[in-house]
Amino acid sequence: MIFKVQDVDISTGGPLIAIMNHKDALEGDFHYEDRIRVTHKKKSTIAILDISESDKQVPSGRIGLMEEVLRILEVRHGSIVKVESEKTPQSVHYIREKLDGKELGKEKIEEIIKDIVNNSLTPVEMTYFVAGCYHKGLSRQEIVNLTKSIVHNGDTFKPKSKIVVDKHCVGGVPGNRTTMVVVPLVAAAGLTIPKTSSRSITSPAGTADSMEVLAEVSLPIEKLKRIIGKVHACMIWGGAFSLAAADDKLIRLRHPLSLDPIGMVLASVLAKKKAVNATHVLVDIPLGKGAKIQTRLEALKFKHLFEGIGKELGMKVKAIITDGSQPIGNGIGPALEARDVLWALQNNVRAPQDLIKKSLLAAGEIFEMVGKSEKGEGRKLAAQLLYSGEGYNKMVQIIKAQGPKVTDPSKIILGKHRLHIRATKSGTIRHIDNKTISRIAWSAGAPVDKTAGLYLYKHKGNRVKTGEALYTIYSDSREKLRFAASLANKNSGFVIRFP
Amino acid sequence: MIFKVQDVDISTGGPLIAIMNHKDALEGDFHYEDRIRVTHKKKSTIAILDISESDKQVPSGRIGLMEEVLRILEVRHGSIVKVESEKTPQSVHYIREKLDGKELGKEKIEEIIKDIVNNSLTPVEMTYFVAGCYHKGLSRQEIVNLTKSIVHNGDTFKPKSKIVVDKHCVGGVPGNRTTMVVVPLVAAAGLTIPKTSSRSITSPAGTADSMEVLAEVSLPIEKLKRIIGKVHACMIWGGAFSLAAADDKLIRLRHPLSLDPIGMVLASVLAKKKAVNATHVLVDIPLGKGAKIQTRLEALKFKHLFEGIGKELGMKVKAIITDGSQPIGNGIGPALEARDVLWALQNNVRAPQDLIKKSLLAAGEIFEMVGKSEKGEGRKLAAQLLYSGEGYNKMVQIIKAQGPKVTDPSKIILGKHRLHIRATKSGTIRHIDNKTISRIAWSAGAPVDKTAGLYLYKHKGNRVKTGEALYTIYSDSREKLRFAASLANKNSGFVIRFP
Repeated sequence: MIFKVQDVDISTGGPLIAIMNHKDALEGDFHYEDRIRVTHKKKSTIAILDISESDKQVPSGRIGLMEEVLRILEVRHGSIVKVESEKTPQSVHYIREKLDGKELGKEKIEEIIKDIVNNSLTPVEMTYFVAGCYHKGLSRQEIVNLTKSIVHNGDTFKPKSKIVVDKHCVGGVPGNRTTMVVVPLVAAAGLTIPKTSSRSITSPAGTADSMEVLAEVSLPIEKLKRIIGKVHACMIWGGAFSLAAADDKLIRLRHPLSLDPIGMVLASVLAKKKAVNATHVLVDIPLGKGAKIQTRLEALKFKHLFEGIGKELGMKVKAIITDGSQPIGNGIGPALEARDVLWALQNNVRAPQDLIKKSLLAAGEIFEMVGKSEKGEGRKLAAQLLYSGEGYNKMVQIIKAQGPKVTDPSKIILGKHRLHIRATKSGTIRHIDNKTISRIAWSAGAPVDKTAGLYLYKHKGNRVKTGEALYTIYSDSREKLRFAASLANKNSGFVIRFP
Repeated sequence: MIFKVQDVDISTGGPLIAIMNHKDALEGDFHYEDRIRVTHKKKSTIAILDISESDKQVPSGRIGLMEEVLRILEVRHGSIVKVESEKTPQSVHYIREKLDGKELGKEKIEEIIKDIVNNSLTPVEMTYFVAGCYHKGLSRQEIVNLTKSIVHNGDTFKPKSKIVVDKHCVGGVPGNRTTMVVVPLVAAAGLTIPKTSSRSITSPAGTADSMEVLAEVSLPIEKLKRIIGKVHACMIWGGAFSLAAADDKLIRLRHPLSLDPIGMVLASVLAKKKAVNATHVLVDIPLGKGAKIQTRLEALKFKHLFEGIGKELGMKVKAIITDGSQPIGNGIGPALEARDVLWALQNNVRAPQDLIKKSLLAAGEIFEMVGKSEKGEGRKLAAQLLYSGEGYNKMVQIIKAQGPKVTDPSKIILGKHRLHIRATKSGTIRHIDNKTISRIAWSAGAPVDKTAGLYLYKHKGNRVKTGEALYTIYSDSREKLRFAASLANKNSGFVIRFP
């Protein structure tokens, strides 16, 4: 059937929805939630059908398209499109096979990923794929094939340099903005490092959230290419383009149940590295109570898989297991973490030493991996680049290339409502719980409110006296500050024991 | 935040969607796909958020609601509602537990089912529940609890009679309209049998589709109660009210991957029986090549579970294993099957003997189960009610009570385009494949086109000569008939072997 497009001016944020008048639906034998194909010239997409119950919304002869569909088809109000009912794609049968515990071959995985990117699968069908991978796991070969399919069904980017460095952190530790220190150091050494990061979903800040305090991060892929050509490094939000489009969709489906099937996590990380043609990748695996990885055995398994599968994909991957038992740095929340990073790069006295130490370790590992330094000498080069100010200069170049906001840490705006949380007894700090600290910062408004978060005055092993400030909570909303403080007063996240 | 309702006149067919203006979303910190609670006076529901990108569709201060949401809240264009962001319900954690292989206790299952009925869970979250039940299976206790939760989170109906009969067929056999013969026979014996049926999704006809040729089947629950009070029997579509609302939603999610987790199937069937307070239930398990149940072991497992779990739910369930290796009756498709049923009840010479035989067996079992007949004497009573015309008279009463369309089989309208499919060789019919026959009838337009389908002239064991008609295909659409015929010419579904 031929329809005239009606721009209904609604976005779903993902799912592709088309709306047909009830009379046309009856005539064409279309039903709610049918899978239909909408074609305009050479562009074509699958959409799910809603029905307009009157002529007011979508009259007969029109097909209402939501923003996501308009964008894919590159059509406008009034364009002419063809609408056909679409059969169940073959990939649905492969998803069923995975759910039934079968190992999927290369072609079947390719078909599933292609259909995810083509929007041929519904959210329910894709959810079954995630459930199957979660349940039955993925074999090593499946992970390799999944990664390859994700890469070549998305955009890729090939920097000119022979060596391309990338870095990933498995996460779970608040304040851990190591990446924002490491990237300028690596680039200051003359290496290429096109870093794309995610925004936070449930933690107080992701690298993209924090970097956004200092510079634009939502840039098209053309801009990424230009920046890398000019300053050899960037720190941008990966969601602005489709380096691993299939993965972005799978992550959204994993989110509601916080599912992290190990094979999917590996494919997700490595696909994003492979898509920028990384040759050397450093993976940081924080280990400890309150981090994502809680046992050494699990950390070693991750390390082994990352390095082995990286190799099969033609990348040199080195995974380091680091201390993830407490927050890194003092600031927690986008602006507070960005300030720590600039302080560290400027060698300011207020720079958190744990952040510097970890950043030098990571940068040093990279220098040794690519052969910039002899074995055991990497940290020295990293320290030299940091203390000479070359790292900060590189950071300023990156910020300017991306679209500058702030380069001076004293100009960073913090939440106008503030409140101290104090020790209720004297003693030594035995533990700081990552999850509790994250929850308090999140309740204060981070990461949506970039100025919100926590600033810690104490770390593990420090001694405190009753009434001494443990941290300050910042928020732009008095109400959110009050809520965060009530949580902190119930449980500050600090375990203090005498003596 | 307070909003004025905007009736956007769109239906999704299930999912609850609300649309907010992008400015309001920014101000209230709402995002795409957020779970929100919309409240109007004492009514309240969860909905998923879409965003209106301009003021044209949903202006600031308005909240666009799709039909399904308007219906639940009983609001209209211009009503005032409160909108809040809604936390993830606890049941999501229980779903995760099930996916992780844990057995769920009574309270957790209750919470999940309550939230399904309340619309507190998104389709993605519910899909994970189905995946968990599919993968890990349900224990006997979980099935019992799931059934109970489905029953008491939906409508129920208590007929006045002490004995309430129900019947279920596991399905997969085309043309098998036994229910439509059994119900009037059982009611003619003075028993109460409030039968609710489903429409077909993938087969050429469900009982509700076929019955709809003769009478109205989409009736409110009040009408069901009145009919049972008057004629003690009905055959109506269960989807018109919410006898097992949670189950209807779960079935929709099982459909895309054709998942039939045995525990969910049992809970689904038994909940619908328990909801009408059935005391005696006959379950027909067709067994054979091409039926749903293909091995005797599987059939026995089903029988055992149905009877055992029925008992735990306080119902006497008897399961019979029947021949499901070929279609039952001659007509396949809503109108053609309805005609077979009326012919059988009228003792017409054209009545298919296999349908009569199976119906008498089933009715006889019921009579013995409830104590209407001595052991071994049930079939005799059934035959007496059939041959005396009392069954047909009861059928006419039921049709009239529901809203009559046709009671005379010769008045049933069949597809105006017809075509014979003929034997391409002589010999004996060794097999008739249910799935192939179903696909051909479905391609001809059944069940949407009620007049479409197949009429068989031959059954297993019959001898045919080259060129002799095996069946006629009926359709209202010349195009669909041609398509169905092209399928039948490639594979008629009949296996003929010499001699």
